[in-house]
Amino acid sequence: MMLYNLPDSLFRIMLSTGYKILLVFTIVTFSSNLAGIRAQDSLSIDEEAFVIQDIFKDNLADTTGYHWLRGLCKNVGHRLSGSPGAAAGVDFTRHILDTLGLDSVWLQPCMVTHWVRGEKEIVRIVGSKTIGTVDLRALALGNAPGTGPDGLSAEVIEVFSLDQLHEMPNVEVEGKIVFFNRPFSMTSMNSFYGYGTAVDQRGRGPQLAADKGAVAAIVRSMTPNIDPHPHTGTTIFRDDSVQVPAVAIATKDAELLAGALKKGPVSVYIRTTSQMLKPALSYNVVGEIRGTEIPEEVILVGGHLDSWDVGEGAHDDGTGCIQSMVVLRNLKRMNYKPRRTIRCVLFMNEENGLRGARAYADSSNAHGEFHFAAIESDAGGFTPQAFSMSSVDEKSDYYFQMVSTFMPLLEPYNIRLTGGGGGADISRLKSQGGMLIGLRPDSQRYFDYHHTDQDVFEAVHYRELALGSAAMTSLVYLLDKYGTNPPK
Amino acid sequence: MMLYNLPDSLFRIMLSTGYKILLVFTIVTFSSNLAGIRAQDSLSIDEEAFVIQDIFKDNLADTTGYHWLRGLCKNVGHRLSGSPGAAAGVDFTRHILDTLGLDSVWLQPCMVTHWVRGEKEIVRIVGSKTIGTVDLRALALGNAPGTGPDGLSAEVIEVFSLDQLHEMPNVEVEGKIVFFNRPFSMTSMNSFYGYGTAVDQRGRGPQLAADKGAVAAIVRSMTPNIDPHPHTGTTIFRDDSVQVPAVAIATKDAELLAGALKKGPVSVYIRTTSQMLKPALSYNVVGEIRGTEIPEEVILVGGHLDSWDVGEGAHDDGTGCIQSMVVLRNLKRMNYKPRRTIRCVLFMNEENGLRGARAYADSSNAHGEFHFAAIESDAGGFTPQAFSMSSVDEKSDYYFQMVSTFMPLLEPYNIRLTGGGGGADISRLKSQGGMLIGLRPDSQRYFDYHHTDQDVFEAVHYRELALGSAAMTSLVYLLDKYGTNPPK
Repeated sequence: MMLYNLPDSLFRIMLSTGYKILLVFTIVTFSSNLAGIRAQDSLSIDEEAFVIQDIFKDNLADTTGYHWLRGLCKNVGHRLSGSPGAAAGVDFTRHILDTLGLDSVWLQPCMVTHWVRGEKEIVRIVGSKTIGTVDLRALALGNAPGTGPDGLSAEVIEVFSLDQLHEMPNVEVEGKIVFFNRPFSMTSMNSFYGYGTAVDQRGRGPQLAADKGAVAAIVRSMTPNIDPHPHTGTTIFRDDSVQVPAVAIATKDAELLAGALKKGPVSVYIRTTSQMLKPALSYNVVGEIRGTEIPEEVILVGGHLDSWDVGEGAHDDGTGCIQSMVVLRNLKRMNYKPRRTIRCVLFMNEENGLRGARAYADSSNAHGEFHFAAIESDAGGFTPQAFSMSSVDEKSDYYFQMVSTFMPLLEPYNIRLTGGGGGADISRLKSQGGMLIGLRPDSQRYFDYHHTDQDVFEAVHYRELALGSAAMTSLVYLLDKYGTNPPK
Repeated sequence: MMLYNLPDSLFRIMLSTGYKILLVFTIVTFSSNLAGIRAQDSLSIDEEAFVIQDIFKDNLADTTGYHWLRGLCKNVGHRLSGSPGAAAGVDFTRHILDTLGLDSVWLQPCMVTHWVRGEKEIVRIVGSKTIGTVDLRALALGNAPGTGPDGLSAEVIEVFSLDQLHEMPNVEVEGKIVFFNRPFSMTSMNSFYGYGTAVDQRGRGPQLAADKGAVAAIVRSMTPNIDPHPHTGTTIFRDDSVQVPAVAIATKDAELLAGALKKGPVSVYIRTTSQMLKPALSYNVVGEIRGTEIPEEVILVGGHLDSWDVGEGAHDDGTGCIQSMVVLRNLKRMNYKPRRTIRCVLFMNEENGLRGARAYADSSNAHGEFHFAAIESDAGGFTPQAFSMSSVDEKSDYYFQMVSTFMPLLEPYNIRLTGGGGGADISRLKSQGGMLIGLRPDSQRYFDYHHTDQDVFEAVHYRELALGSAAMTSLVYLLDKYGTNPPK
């Protein structure tokens, strides 16, 4: 780009947006007649456009959240549930919330999964006539047992699906290491959909391998890239079953192992010393601004504070935590007095247990709370593209249509409303019947970092992070000020 | 994100999109009646949705363009007009086009600006009592003269606008170095708008400083970041005027210099050996697929092949060149026989002369060509968000409305139609009266790289690059197949 190539002017954006606002208003009126939405009649797009613009400008200009993230990543580091890092993350974020002038800040106790990785994994091709001895870049899968200090060696069999393994005679699997090597789809526009095409292998593959008599499982890392970074993540075993050691290997090394297998039998030596300890005491970190009119209705913003024990838990999910904290900071700086209670929740143990989410929902239900809306940011700190929420029945459709009426205000920031879920941590609030909403950023780069040592502060861009905070703040503001429940 | 948090399914995307397609069709019908658009009646969104989906899937799965970009960046490197790198870039891209089975590939000669940077710049605080001697990270501005081997020293005066400098008495400016230090706006959602708030200082500041009797100019680099990377770029002098040496300094160093100036007078030593040579022979690189029905109408896709002489010209504008080449590759692989002539043009000398664009437009006009549409990609190889085109009169409004009818097909890929220009290289085709369209990717990270040594291959993500190619291919396909001119 050079000098002569003038940028789009705000004027043009306003013009183009104005055009769309007219169209959407036509639709809204139409929908309102159908669905009985009334309260938005008082929403003035023209007036609120300046409020939303200020929110975005303030967030782009103010790098406080970015510096908080730097502290969380560099001073605290990764934060696997039960680890000293997780405890430090609780202290760090609670301390920040304490400085914001909120009405209350507290720690909510929960007993969390306490799994430890142990020593650096060894995953080594030892019995291949064609390529000799080769170390593969690997990470033990979360919640999996270790091999113990002696390790184990066995021949590798490659499979591409759980069905394929299921149909194999047990005798072909017994004593072997099962290698799950179906690639993550490269062709999905939404990388999370690509994730969905492959992640069953990591989640349920090792249990099935154990059931069939295998001695261990190797899983191709969950990324569309061919790269040298192993991606860890949870694998799920039934409590009553035999469990086997399980590791993820980098996709580059999965290709190498697959190539070796094409040429003849391959044995691999695996040594992992990971183990599951007894559940540990930890905390969700919570702060709130009490509502002035209907305090019994809660609008939650949140992410998860725990991370995997590699990298710094930056995109997963330091950014979601920081963005949620910034929402409260923003509302205080705007001197906005919310009608409803606005609560930031940093959930513990999302990655390998969801115990924080369970403790939060159980407590909320026990106290008869109603979450009017819960907004989760747990898809990376990238440029936001959408909010997602379900529309599956009359009530959720009412909410979906209502939020649709706000969207002309977010369209200048390229943010849409789509179908889809809210997120893992808020999913347990479903029974309360309010809105479960997910922030959906651009997903193209997420699986460069996810669950790897690459997920560090430097992978987050301050402007992209800020746009997410601004989007969440805007939606909270609009939901609080204009949101209504369906007529009984 | 963990296992339980299932991604949006494609099904949901289709549902949500389907909803919007219905709405847009209502609008289209309405517009059609007004504007007399008829030919799109045959457009079947349902059928074409699968074609567009295939284009996106193929581009995400096929990394050929990414490898071309690697070659252009790593084997050729930066490509300032008149340099050996520019010549190598011409050879490299022509060779690739030759392999695609196009109907013609040719080099279009043009005489280009030939400016050379010379030796590494020295920009040094030498006369500050408070901070002593400090070297500032600097790059000479393109097309500016050098100081010569001895350099020059003078006291610095800081200004924040051209108006401020204009109003100063000449006696206050004579013999000084003018330091333009108005920051690039951080608060613009579109970073190019931020660029527009500051770039007059680089483009016209040094000329004004010279007019007022200054001996040199220092410009704060064009980025919203506070970072250590100087950003070069063109400055413009009148041919008949006194010209002075001009450099950009890193924003970090601009802050440092400004801080020193607050404490007292500061002198700076500048040494640059840049010079303007005689215009050099170079080329635009062109390849085309000849139209089968209306070959006299051209749909152009293009970027600029030249770059600044730092970094590798990756985002600016290697990515635009590669994406344009990939469009032709895609159409050949689809075995699509275009109705119109589809032409890829890699323009030379965009950065500091626009001579390639001028040569192309002059030749096109002389041959009586009509560019039905020209699509330029010159805003970085990031996730595409929109196509921009102007709507300023009846004819351009017809085209805008027509392209609007295609957009439901691109909405699943988060691509919208907005107002705005096409780009510098295609702007000279305006008199032909066709569509001038710009690809508008996410702009948040662009000014991390723009005109710096940071603009290298590694700064480009293969998925983001591919989405741009897919978006351009889709639009070319739809324009060719369904596009019409307004009734006479």
